[in-house]
Amino acid sequence: MNINQHFLNLNDSYLFSIIAKKVNDYKAANPDNMIIRLGIGDVTLPLVPAVVEAMHHAVSEMGRAETFRGYGEEQGYLFLRQAVCGYYAKKGVTIQDDEVFISDGAKSDLGNILDIFAPDNTVLIPDPVYPVYVDTNIMAGCNIVYMNGNADNGFLPQPDKSIRPDIIYLCSPNNPTGAVYNKEQLSLWVDYALENNAVILFDSAYEIFIRDANLPTSIYQIDGADKCAIEFCSLSKMAGFTGTRCGYTIVPRSLIRSGTALNKLWLRRQTTKFNGVPYIVQRGAEAVFTGEGFAQIQSNIDYYLQNARIITDTLTELGTWFTGGINAPYIWLKCPDSMSSWEFFDYLLENANVVGTPGAGFGAGGEGFFRLSAFGHRESVITAMKNLRKLK
Amino acid sequence: MNINQHFLNLNDSYLFSIIAKKVNDYKAANPDNMIIRLGIGDVTLPLVPAVVEAMHHAVSEMGRAETFRGYGEEQGYLFLRQAVCGYYAKKGVTIQDDEVFISDGAKSDLGNILDIFAPDNTVLIPDPVYPVYVDTNIMAGCNIVYMNGNADNGFLPQPDKSIRPDIIYLCSPNNPTGAVYNKEQLSLWVDYALENNAVILFDSAYEIFIRDANLPTSIYQIDGADKCAIEFCSLSKMAGFTGTRCGYTIVPRSLIRSGTALNKLWLRRQTTKFNGVPYIVQRGAEAVFTGEGFAQIQSNIDYYLQNARIITDTLTELGTWFTGGINAPYIWLKCPDSMSSWEFFDYLLENANVVGTPGAGFGAGGEGFFRLSAFGHRESVITAMKNLRKLK
Repeated sequence: MNINQHFLNLNDSYLFSIIAKKVNDYKAANPDNMIIRLGIGDVTLPLVPAVVEAMHHAVSEMGRAETFRGYGEEQGYLFLRQAVCGYYAKKGVTIQDDEVFISDGAKSDLGNILDIFAPDNTVLIPDPVYPVYVDTNIMAGCNIVYMNGNADNGFLPQPDKSIRPDIIYLCSPNNPTGAVYNKEQLSLWVDYALENNAVILFDSAYEIFIRDANLPTSIYQIDGADKCAIEFCSLSKMAGFTGTRCGYTIVPRSLIRSGTALNKLWLRRQTTKFNGVPYIVQRGAEAVFTGEGFAQIQSNIDYYLQNARIITDTLTELGTWFTGGINAPYIWLKCPDSMSSWEFFDYLLENANVVGTPGAGFGAGGEGFFRLSAFGHRESVITAMKNLRKLK
Repeated sequence: MNINQHFLNLNDSYLFSIIAKKVNDYKAANPDNMIIRLGIGDVTLPLVPAVVEAMHHAVSEMGRAETFRGYGEEQGYLFLRQAVCGYYAKKGVTIQDDEVFISDGAKSDLGNILDIFAPDNTVLIPDPVYPVYVDTNIMAGCNIVYMNGNADNGFLPQPDKSIRPDIIYLCSPNNPTGAVYNKEQLSLWVDYALENNAVILFDSAYEIFIRDANLPTSIYQIDGADKCAIEFCSLSKMAGFTGTRCGYTIVPRSLIRSGTALNKLWLRRQTTKFNGVPYIVQRGAEAVFTGEGFAQIQSNIDYYLQNARIITDTLTELGTWFTGGINAPYIWLKCPDSMSSWEFFDYLLENANVVGTPGAGFGAGGEGFFRLSAFGHRESVITAMKNLRKLK
């Protein structure tokens, strides 16, 4: 019996465990200092009332014979898929309900989507980036080519005509950099994908943070994207569903490769290896897209964006180079005094009692940079920035 | 860009859509006849009160800042993993909490587990069987060898020493046949797996239906299984979670292949491509393993087993050969008068207004047999059996 040898090529993902160890060591040595965590990308505000109410109702339904639900619809309940279509309609994008696949989150779908592609494809992945793209491709044994984000391109790499990719990962607003592609930039990517017969895997998990009406919140706002892109979105950050688990993936019926509709392949993959999202959670997700629910989640997004504003104002004041934080919950800053990511991590922990995430944890291209998250509580963010100013 | 060509080797899974079409056509032609569905393997009783109460509580927790939960623990919450360990302890099996992986169901894990194995393995799969085993292996491009279940071996195939498998699928109590391996038979499989350095993927999704204390409800009740078996279980049938989605997979730390602990590989797979089960659902699942919750679900299992008894008594009375239905929710019967599976389907629909599942839908070895499910409502089962008796 053979294991999948590609797993042996994975780096152990020590990032957050090293951070935890460093923080614990510091706390043990300095028990009186309050540590402020602006590191991990988890939300802190509770689920909004409309979602809580919808889920209570659904739990009660599941407890009564007349309203109990067993196995759900294959691609997710129509009521939720139609709500997603309605959300896209407001973006000016027409999506059919059979192009929407409800899932337990973007991470699962971004990993599992590789099942429908051959492992000999050339895969273009930004660096730095959300580590899941890289690790899932290593597991599948794909040929990975990196495209470098850096301060010069604002961490928004553009197509390189000398490379002929089959699969292209894009994440906008970006994790970890918070950088957002504009329409012209995304159009170049769509044209490039079409020229190469490639497929763009577009991660729009942070689209709700875009407040600039000129910036695209979906790849399908770009002409031709329905013939070359799959879009992955999640309610994790949009509606605080990190512990509630629901997302959706759009596979347009017009996306054909090797003479086969990828929509049909993904349907076959999902109906064979997945059995849907809890009815209770789908009802909670549906409530997000109602007028009442959407107003409530927008108010939470406002709160996080105001946190981001407090951080970016401080960095501007300090003259620190950064990107993100305007239409994104992440702020990506250049470590001062040519410090490495981990040197700055230690410096910030010891001198400001603030925990962030070293950029090197997101790929070689992240070295010398640092991620702060706007998902904390307001008072923590204010205190953290006060401490940062004192360092000057 | 290349798609995964193995997908083109899949048969389209028309089974349940053909059944639906035949039923709809019959209903259109005979609008006054009441159709009784004993086909699909979905539960009909609602969630038990202990589960409903636990989920209401958890929904409320998610709506308050002090008790809100974001991303959960990597392998599932410790409270649930410990509850699973406690359940195994009652079976006389010692499992550590880091050997338990909470998931959204056995179907997902049974499909995704192939990620950690090389595709050049030889995979032994029973025929007839739950179609997911076959389809996921076709998708991965594995070398499939079938082992035949038939009336002579009671649909419980035994090891064939002339084959040297790397991966072996076993499902007991079986879907679709309801047949259950005894300890001696399972011991032969464990010995065979150890001799071949193979891994058994043991699907115990129906173990709760075993009422005969001499029959094994876990592969780990067999000596040596912790060195050769992964066990997949689900709350779908155990606690009516088909629409609530929760299961668990046991990967013993002592299971080593190619010098690598499969527990570590599966952890890496899951942390990279999965983000856990909703907190609300995990609290509901925890309630299943409490004294109160377990008594409530046992009462539901009693109900389904009594349905099964009504079916098996009728078949015995009619002199029809069958297996299952004693320690399982499925009854697998031989079609009378040498009818094919589909001929009997039509005959039963037209003459008794009963819908079942043609055995041929579970593999070539299922031809000439037919599956009835005990998951219906009592009155339907009684009426169905009354109609069956009239055929005589």
